Amino acid sequence: MPKQVITPSSDSSAVSNSCAEYGLTTEEFHALREKATQAKSTAYCPYSNFHVGAVLLTQSGAYISGANVENASYPVATCAERVAFGKAITEGHRGFKAVAVATDISPPASPCGMCRQCIREFCDLSTPIIMFDGEQKYSIMRLEQLLPLSFGPEALGVPSQLQSSSSS
Amino acid sequence: MPKQVITPSSDSSAVSNSCAEYGLTTEEFHALREKATQAKSTAYCPYSNFHVGAVLLTQSGAYISGANVENASYPVATCAERVAFGKAITEGHRGFKAVAVATDISPPASPCGMCRQCIREFCDLSTPIIMFDGEQKYSIMRLEQLLPLSFGPEALGVPSQLQSSSSS
Amino acid sequence: MPKQVITPSSDSSAVSNSCAEYGLTTEEFHALREKATQAKSTAYCPYSNFHVGAVLLTQSGAYISGANVENASYPVATCAERVAFGKAITEGHRGFKAVAVATDISPPASPCGMCRQCIREFCDLSTPIIMFDGEQKYSIMRLEQLLPLSFGPEALGVPSQLQSSSSS
Amino acid sequence: MPKQVITPSSDSSAVSNSCAEYGLTTEEFHALREKATQAKSTAYCPYSNFHVGAVLLTQSGAYISGANVENASYPVATCAERVAFGKAITEGHRGFKAVAVATDISPPASPCGMCRQCIREFCDLSTPIIMFDGEQKYSIMRLEQLLPLSFGPEALGVPSQLQSSSSS
Ligand SMILES: [Zn+2]
Ligand SMILES: [Zn+2]
Ligand SMILES: [Zn+2]
Ligand SMILES: [Zn+2]
Repeated sequence: MPKQVITPSSDSSAVSNSCAEYGLTTEEFHALREKATQAKSTAYCPYSNFHVGAVLLTQSGAYISGANVENASYPVATCAERVAFGKAITEGHRGFKAVAVATDISPPASPCGMCRQCIREFCDLSTPIIMFDGEQKYSIMRLEQLLPLSFGPEALGVPSQLQSSSSS
Repeated sequence: MPKQVITPSSDSSAVSNSCAEYGLTTEEFHALREKATQAKSTAYCPYSNFHVGAVLLTQSGAYISGANVENASYPVATCAERVAFGKAITEGHRGFKAVAVATDISPPASPCGMCRQCIREFCDLSTPIIMFDGEQKYSIMRLEQLLPLSFGPEALGVPSQLQSSSSS
Repeated sequence: MPKQVITPSSDSSAVSNSCAEYGLTTEEFHALREKATQAKSTAYCPYSNFHVGAVLLTQSGAYISGANVENASYPVATCAERVAFGKAITEGHRGFKAVAVATDISPPASPCGMCRQCIREFCDLSTPIIMFDGEQKYSIMRLEQLLPLSFGPEALGVPSQLQSSSSS
Repeated sequence: MPKQVITPSSDSSAVSNSCAEYGLTTEEFHALREKATQAKSTAYCPYSNFHVGAVLLTQSGAYISGANVENASYPVATCAERVAFGKAITEGHRGFKAVAVATDISPPASPCGMCRQCIREFCDLSTPIIMFDGEQKYSIMRLEQLLPLSFGPEALGVPSQLQSSSSS
């Protein structure tokens, strides 16, 4: 089981190391942090009052944001990550370099299982998922660490070439 | 129970009557038709091969599109309407004048119950929902006709002022 | 649009009329009322504190109960009606005579759109849905009134013979 | 990341070792295998034709089964594991010793992310999840391995005493 390491985003040496390990530039890292944090304020969450922001970085350098959109019938809600993938996929984006989520709690909250499954549909298993807490601290894990032995399109005979292709 | 009247979009007299009844201009009607139809091609639906496009018209004149985004785990899918509302709400839109959906089947397919519930969260009960089939024929019903006796935010003590406010 | 008529369950003349109209015996009506009301106490709803009980009456006379089962990730929750259908279908029941739901609020809460869609998969359009409030008052509507122009298995080429067959 | 070890259920020495490691008797192991395998046949899955069976073993020795119940609107479907938890929770069960799932494919399919999140709500992190393929081979992982850094009730201020309490 992976250990959760929590690091301040202001620790530039640690951030540089993270970026080297996960194939990001520090500019990308900080853009992800800022955009995920800003996205929190776009949530519609009168039921949980739990604001979640998400942002996707595509392999071609686009950032697509989302936030949780709740409903009086709780299961009709859509989490931040799935709002972001809904936007990205229908706007033609394929091939994702990183996923970031931000909440107000510590330690940094991870994507729920349902969202990990959504990420699985569209991202390589090695894709980094960066989780920011309310104080700009972060943890990073790869998708395959957050959703091991995952069930995906292949199990139903659907090609997953999506994951490696790049566009827009 | 409301009867489903199906009308060709090329019948300009019928379209004019529909627009007068539901508070739309004919330009808005045809923009909704074109955008909903185009949105179908942005669906990710390798499991059902059932393409659905949706578009929302805000009270300030913006159009926000969506399409269904499926998943190997079927319940993790997001329907076209909910993708569109996810985008719209997190981009700050409030106050919707009409919702349109388009599919390839006839008679025109209606939003599933889950999506009617999503629409309920953000729209006045009188909001028209326009359904286009694969041959540009359409039906229109108000939300209160498609989801009578609906369960909404009020039941949980959440103010639904959202529905009448307008922005962006 | 159907009007919601609200009637006390203690009004035996009104209940008799409802039963005659919807093909139920008064014993069945009161069993549905009692079982739906009792089912509320089996809900797991620490997030909404909104207790919902549901019960299905099969054509062969069995009653299957359910209640809402929520989750820290709100969309992972399952509503009372879908818990009941999950049980019923996997236990081999087919063919339903009535669906009842009970909550603590007035007027009687209706099934959310997502649950109406679930009912649609397994019930004839004429199936009565009885809604009880916290004071044993009730409303009844047929499925086709609560989910007009519904989208069902036929649209995807799946036979819906389920709906009329009877078993267990 | 955990490695998936796949073992024939007929290898009694390996099964004994698994049982010792995960706190099960071999009788419980084989009951879980048989019941999960049988539950597959109770699925309603005309859309995916992908049969999944699930069974829960409570700390008091009860077995509760479920299977996937699909819907023409794909997101309205309920997976096997969530059908089983819906039954179990509303029938008063608390405290689970093991979760088993069975499918027809190899290697053994794991619970989707949405179901891992459901399991998280009601089970200790150390709970074993046994996955059976179509040829009675199995893999076992603990919940904390399948859903590391999980998001649960505590994040929303809801006590998770459920997980350790036992009943029925
Ligand atoms: Zn989520
Ligand atoms: Zn839908
Ligand atoms: Zn519901
Ligand atoms: Zn699942």
